[in-house]
Amino acid sequence: MVRWEPDAAGRLREAAMALYAEQGYDGTTVAEIADRAGVTARTFFRHFADKREVLFAGSSELEELMVAAVAAAPASAGAMDAVAAGVLAAGEVFEGRRDHSRRRQALIVATPELREREFIKLAALATAFTAALQARGIPAPRAALAAELGVTIFRVAFERWVDGSEGDLEKVLRSTLAELADLTA
Amino acid sequence: MVRWEPDAAGRLREAAMALYAEQGYDGTTVAEIADRAGVTARTFFRHFADKREVLFAGSSELEELMVAAVAAAPASAGAMDAVAAGVLAAGEVFEGRRDHSRRRQALIVATPELREREFIKLAALATAFTAALQARGIPAPRAALAAELGVTIFRVAFERWVDGSEGDLEKVLRSTLAELADLTA
Repeated sequence: MVRWEPDAAGRLREAAMALYAEQGYDGTTVAEIADRAGVTARTFFRHFADKREVLFAGSSELEELMVAAVAAAPASAGAMDAVAAGVLAAGEVFEGRRDHSRRRQALIVATPELREREFIKLAALATAFTAALQARGIPAPRAALAAELGVTIFRVAFERWVDGSEGDLEKVLRSTLAELADLTA
Repeated sequence: MVRWEPDAAGRLREAAMALYAEQGYDGTTVAEIADRAGVTARTFFRHFADKREVLFAGSSELEELMVAAVAAAPASAGAMDAVAAGVLAAGEVFEGRRDHSRRRQALIVATPELREREFIKLAALATAFTAALQARGIPAPRAALAAELGVTIFRVAFERWVDGSEGDLEKVLRSTLAELADLTA
């Protein structure tokens, strides 16, 4: 049976988020997610490798976009300015997605398996930032430190944005970067 | 049978590190670790909750010591100086333990399950730093940012120390803190 499945991936994501919130991550099967989204389990696996990845779809595109912004920073930018450009590039990606991000974050914090997967994704982002900074001529140890700082700022700002009342992630990223400068002054 | 087991925990740690390196973490059982250390599996479980924890023994003592140093920083110290005191306190704990730390780090990097456990331990350290900074009167959001920066510095410096030729962790922690100030200047 061939079915027309407009935005099957989006519906699978919504179904997974709803079921994880209702009955927990551990208590939810791929079959239930597919059923709720009105597709087959086979369709689920066409879009996602496993039950975890359904919440991390788009993370490689986000990483690519952030790394491209590091590469595109003006030649005159130092390590921290280049990595700040990468961090700020995440702002537009999350425009209008705060409610979704808040629900998603609550699930991640409550589920060790999802939390672990998020740590791995952020470690991959730091590695990618490091490579992008090295490509700009920054020596490896300094590049790694700046990259880790960039990921820390992104993570802290993202949590602030999700928990706070400010709708614009880019603004929160900017104020967190300013606070880093202030703290270390 | 009651056996005299001098430093059973230490021998179990060494046996686990050796077996994980020889045949991989996944391919090693608790029974094999106990056997290599010359004790029973029951003794293993008297000392460690599971196969992962054998590599993270002492992490709660380390956290306590680092957090105590944040609390003990001079009243005049700001958020970053207090957290730097906490980070530097780790120096003496690892005196003379670079070879051991290098072998342990290689296992962690190569084993997703161990890497995940390490992320969780570091997240707990950040939470403890945040509470210690709040107890010093630093508002929660600023405390959380300074805490995360402290953990990032600790992690980067620890990797540099393990991979480098400098034997003294405290020196590497100091130079990494100085580089943070330089990067964000």
